Amino acid sequence: MTYSVAIAGASGYAGSEVLRLLLDHPAYASGELAIGALTAASNAGRSVGEILPHLAPLADRVIQETTPENLAGHDAVFLGLPHGHSAEIAAALGEGPDAPAILDCGADFRLSDPAEWRRYYGTEHAGSWTYGIPELPGGREAIASSRRVAVPGCFPTGGTIACLPATAAGLVEPQWSIVSVTGTSGAGKKAAVPMLGSEVMGNLRAYNTAGRHRHTAEFLQNLGGAGELSVSFTPVLAPTSRGILTVATAPLADPATTTAAARAAYAEHYAGEPFVQLLAEGLQPQTKSVVGSNMVQLQVEVDERAGRLLVTSAIDNLVKGTAGAAVQCMNLMLGLDETAGLPRAGLAP
Amino acid sequence: MTYSVAIAGASGYAGSEVLRLLLDHPAYASGELAIGALTAASNAGRSVGEILPHLAPLADRVIQETTPENLAGHDAVFLGLPHGHSAEIAAALGEGPDAPAILDCGADFRLSDPAEWRRYYGTEHAGSWTYGIPELPGGREAIASSRRVAVPGCFPTGGTIACLPATAAGLVEPQWSIVSVTGTSGAGKKAAVPMLGSEVMGNLRAYNTAGRHRHTAEFLQNLGGAGELSVSFTPVLAPTSRGILTVATAPLADPATTTAAARAAYAEHYAGEPFVQLLAEGLQPQTKSVVGSNMVQLQVEVDERAGRLLVTSAIDNLVKGTAGAAVQCMNLMLGLDETAGLPRAGLAP
Amino acid sequence: MTYSVAIAGASGYAGSEVLRLLLDHPAYASGELAIGALTAASNAGRSVGEILPHLAPLADRVIQETTPENLAGHDAVFLGLPHGHSAEIAAALGEGPDAPAILDCGADFRLSDPAEWRRYYGTEHAGSWTYGIPELPGGREAIASSRRVAVPGCFPTGGTIACLPATAAGLVEPQWSIVSVTGTSGAGKKAAVPMLGSEVMGNLRAYNTAGRHRHTAEFLQNLGGAGELSVSFTPVLAPTSRGILTVATAPLADPATTTAAARAAYAEHYAGEPFVQLLAEGLQPQTKSVVGSNMVQLQVEVDERAGRLLVTSAIDNLVKGTAGAAVQCMNLMLGLDETAGLPRAGLAP
Amino acid sequence: MTYSVAIAGASGYAGSEVLRLLLDHPAYASGELAIGALTAASNAGRSVGEILPHLAPLADRVIQETTPENLAGHDAVFLGLPHGHSAEIAAALGEGPDAPAILDCGADFRLSDPAEWRRYYGTEHAGSWTYGIPELPGGREAIASSRRVAVPGCFPTGGTIACLPATAAGLVEPQWSIVSVTGTSGAGKKAAVPMLGSEVMGNLRAYNTAGRHRHTAEFLQNLGGAGELSVSFTPVLAPTSRGILTVATAPLADPATTTAAARAAYAEHYAGEPFVQLLAEGLQPQTKSVVGSNMVQLQVEVDERAGRLLVTSAIDNLVKGTAGAAVQCMNLMLGLDETAGLPRAGLAP
Repeated sequence: MTYSVAIAGASGYAGSEVLRLLLDHPAYASGELAIGALTAASNAGRSVGEILPHLAPLADRVIQETTPENLAGHDAVFLGLPHGHSAEIAAALGEGPDAPAILDCGADFRLSDPAEWRRYYGTEHAGSWTYGIPELPGGREAIASSRRVAVPGCFPTGGTIACLPATAAGLVEPQWSIVSVTGTSGAGKKAAVPMLGSEVMGNLRAYNTAGRHRHTAEFLQNLGGAGELSVSFTPVLAPTSRGILTVATAPLADPATTTAAARAAYAEHYAGEPFVQLLAEGLQPQTKSVVGSNMVQLQVEVDERAGRLLVTSAIDNLVKGTAGAAVQCMNLMLGLDETAGLPRAGLAP
Repeated sequence: MTYSVAIAGASGYAGSEVLRLLLDHPAYASGELAIGALTAASNAGRSVGEILPHLAPLADRVIQETTPENLAGHDAVFLGLPHGHSAEIAAALGEGPDAPAILDCGADFRLSDPAEWRRYYGTEHAGSWTYGIPELPGGREAIASSRRVAVPGCFPTGGTIACLPATAAGLVEPQWSIVSVTGTSGAGKKAAVPMLGSEVMGNLRAYNTAGRHRHTAEFLQNLGGAGELSVSFTPVLAPTSRGILTVATAPLADPATTTAAARAAYAEHYAGEPFVQLLAEGLQPQTKSVVGSNMVQLQVEVDERAGRLLVTSAIDNLVKGTAGAAVQCMNLMLGLDETAGLPRAGLAP
Repeated sequence: MTYSVAIAGASGYAGSEVLRLLLDHPAYASGELAIGALTAASNAGRSVGEILPHLAPLADRVIQETTPENLAGHDAVFLGLPHGHSAEIAAALGEGPDAPAILDCGADFRLSDPAEWRRYYGTEHAGSWTYGIPELPGGREAIASSRRVAVPGCFPTGGTIACLPATAAGLVEPQWSIVSVTGTSGAGKKAAVPMLGSEVMGNLRAYNTAGRHRHTAEFLQNLGGAGELSVSFTPVLAPTSRGILTVATAPLADPATTTAAARAAYAEHYAGEPFVQLLAEGLQPQTKSVVGSNMVQLQVEVDERAGRLLVTSAIDNLVKGTAGAAVQCMNLMLGLDETAGLPRAGLAP
Repeated sequence: MTYSVAIAGASGYAGSEVLRLLLDHPAYASGELAIGALTAASNAGRSVGEILPHLAPLADRVIQETTPENLAGHDAVFLGLPHGHSAEIAAALGEGPDAPAILDCGADFRLSDPAEWRRYYGTEHAGSWTYGIPELPGGREAIASSRRVAVPGCFPTGGTIACLPATAAGLVEPQWSIVSVTGTSGAGKKAAVPMLGSEVMGNLRAYNTAGRHRHTAEFLQNLGGAGELSVSFTPVLAPTSRGILTVATAPLADPATTTAAARAAYAEHYAGEPFVQLLAEGLQPQTKSVVGSNMVQLQVEVDERAGRLLVTSAIDNLVKGTAGAAVQCMNLMLGLDETAGLPRAGLAP
């Protein structure tokens, strides 16, 4: 059986990263998976070679316009569109058994609480789809049985995977301080002076601080547990294209908790997970270790003197944080091997 | 009157940055300040042009060996030595009125509590000198009347200036979560595989986590106040040579505190400080704005939903974080204008 | 006597770098030089603190609109405008003895040959002004006696200073192969996808190749000599904000020429030049050694086996390549010390 | 049939990149290819997880010592050793039909002329092996029938592939000016102050200039043709981990040659080559387009005014420039599909 997939927003960072992964997907090599329509907005009519010169095998492909017609008739459609554009496309593609499975890399369907959506996005809530983190409890099964999946935000992916086991094991009071240092590609491929190389190289700055970042809502949705949840989330922009390093701390529920106990809880929580790696004691996650791969590297420690649990995680924001998660979900939805086409080795140095 | 200054460890990053600043010091231009002996260990005998090619005006100067003899006879001596080497040199230079004023860029004399010293450095405590942050209460006067000053660590400089007003004004419970994202030059000019360009470019990683970083002791020394102090400090290495961006949060003492009130407290605390700039509301500190300068850029906000105060600060770790602080202290100790030779404009882009 | 200077295009990289240099100019410190109108186009009405946060001492200044009225009445006006906008402003400012001296950081008045102008810029030639490289033969005197100076392009500055002595001394046949590796700030502060940090970090690419770069015309104008001149010029974009490293080679006129002879010719040619440093044998120019400074670092060698002379030079494209050259020319035009306000030490590491 | 391969020098950049590629090799996935001994010198006894944290699937593997005993008994052995160490290992591994095929990523067996070897390396010539560029005339066949292959240097790979068709087609006089801008990983994983991140970030510098770089000998060996060959080769270090952008020019043999004619010659020369991509007219190679992949991107143009041919090429120095070439040769030597395990899409942005 052959599956065909289409990518809307193929010229953006999310869409083109899905493409990059599909080109090395074994089902593509074997002919089981075909790369169908590639669509975009302003880049429609241009060749892949011209706007995505790193995708040599597709250099002669021409980008089409993003319309329901061009996207229909595929088995799966990836949406890498600006926030607010997915609902209309999804509606036009329909929901019947012959309609394509949809993987939305945008935010439109991530939040289940309409009030939270309005608070952070300021528009009407379009609804919510299955949340695309297979590593959450029940996540894998929910995704496999869904036709529509909302791929999570890049920060909530690395942060949720870092923080959830501590809550589940009752290690902490759920009052998280989260600082995520991120590369620039999370801002997308939009021309903007503050994202110029001249501005970001050699520079470090926080942004969307004090609860204003929209991903705060996803953290709050994902990290609930016993006790009153609070999340202080601060993203910091750093001079690298890819990668998110998250530092999360919360007060220990029991000050006598040891690092060994915390490590045991994390090891048990993620036992068998193909893309979550709890590092050996003494090692810290590095974004360069996961760049290009779908891995999450984790470390967890107790800071005795401060009475806090410290969890750190590293992901590639464009892979596990976006396109890799999308492909992982696609694999589950199409009944392919969940890990197919998703590298576990990063590109270092 | 002419002052002469010597620099021990002139080939390292701290020492060479003192030199860079002195070359543009108006007292150097006017002949009031002379650059005397430049000394080093393994680089002794080599020319400045060979090992510090950016210091063109001194290209023909030859680096001498770091000995008390070479350093004696100056009005001020900067020590940019590996930790543990300052005490012996200081003892040999003596303490009489004719002995040079000493500015130690190393850690040896920063901590007043011998137990804390032993805890973090593992050796006998050498003692403590005047702590070189003029912006602390009484700091300016203490430095001006001292002959020996311990220049603070780079992280505690940016972090203390960020956190202190909140404690002083009683805005927070003193339970700080501090994440500082730093460039690589803080690690010094020592050959080491993890600090190779190939390793650090494109990479983000935390290190010396969970209370292990030695600067934790300085934070604890500086940030005491009402309530039981705790500091969770996590440094993160980012791919840039210079700059520290600190993100500090603590629980609000009164949940009704507003950003305006917090800003007012900070503005009052630092009124008239030449090197501390509380940014206009809505702007965030950027390390690139302060690179090459002695400035500290600050922002303070209330995160209502999380119930925490958020303070961010940016410094150049080699200027306000090390050599600029040292020159600022030297100015005070020699009776020069405190701000002389210390740029307030950063090098951007 | 007090001079007042205005900057048109103050929010761009050229204009803001002039500002940065003026803030540390001793004539500004002494009150002899006042910073007058700061003007811009789309940024008019915004504060310096908002758009140029690195210029802390001017944070509260408001940018005005770029109009002749706002620029008139100053002793000197710097133009940091897009190509094609200088002629009109200059005409409106007039040429009488009370009209301001003008330093144009744009290209409009650099080329003396109208045909060359049309070939590379495609518009009518506006004329030519004194070419602003004091280090050219007669350059210093010509600038000092001019009221209008065309500040050269960044590539031709580093390249001309590298190549000219070889021609003057008859060392080579004037058939130059020039490759200049440049940081991104030369492209200006314009939003454009190919200049995003995500695109330029980790990337190397040539552009405007095969004679298409407009600076080729300046090279051809500057490097004439005995024999038929040809210049193959290739700029390469590298992931750093500042700096140009130029590699220039040409066939030796006499294959027996030695490196020592070539060095002697260069040393003699630039004897006494405050901003040109011929490095000691065995050292190579580094852009980081000159970043933030007005220096040109040079090295010259004979490649015996290839029968070619190799000259390398490093400049900061925004300082000696633009704003530093402009301030150097301003100093000459206003009768100030030529070197005032122009650092000779670079910002490293 | 199952092949087993060993890697000597597995902890270095060349060796670990071979490992990274093998982990995604389809023969590894299918069990046809087994990763055998991983050996190193000072890192022997440490785990892969500790020293190569990006290779998650092998985290628990322990590095052995580099001895003939540990390397014997494999079908193929990759050598990623410092220059001068391969000959002894190769001799110990023997040459019989049961001896492993050897792929030397070092320089020891690249040069056929003993005098050239001694000129550039200063030691006795160990001999020469089949030169591992399948894209050279007859290269593919020679490699497939060899048991020992010398993987070329990174600069000569990108440069030879760029320059050879011009010589073969008689387009130029073979007097090449070659400037190659390179990332830092080519310098290897050795601790050295000039390669620290603090030194290389924000910096550009030429090195081993004027014919001193050892790869000059490979260029001279590869680029011979009609007329007297000369090569002026200048490497420039740029702040990125990976990638080489080569700019090569030579005088046109016939000044009437057009870009179209040159493009046609290149297209014909590389017709059917899976890893050489002549870009569409108007596009320039970018290293970021090939990072992580085995591709060579090429562009060729005539600079009419300068009378020179301009060829530019981009490679990943660790893939096509080292480990990818080695795996490509291994595929040929073991009778696998030449392209297996070698990505053709790069990792951008």
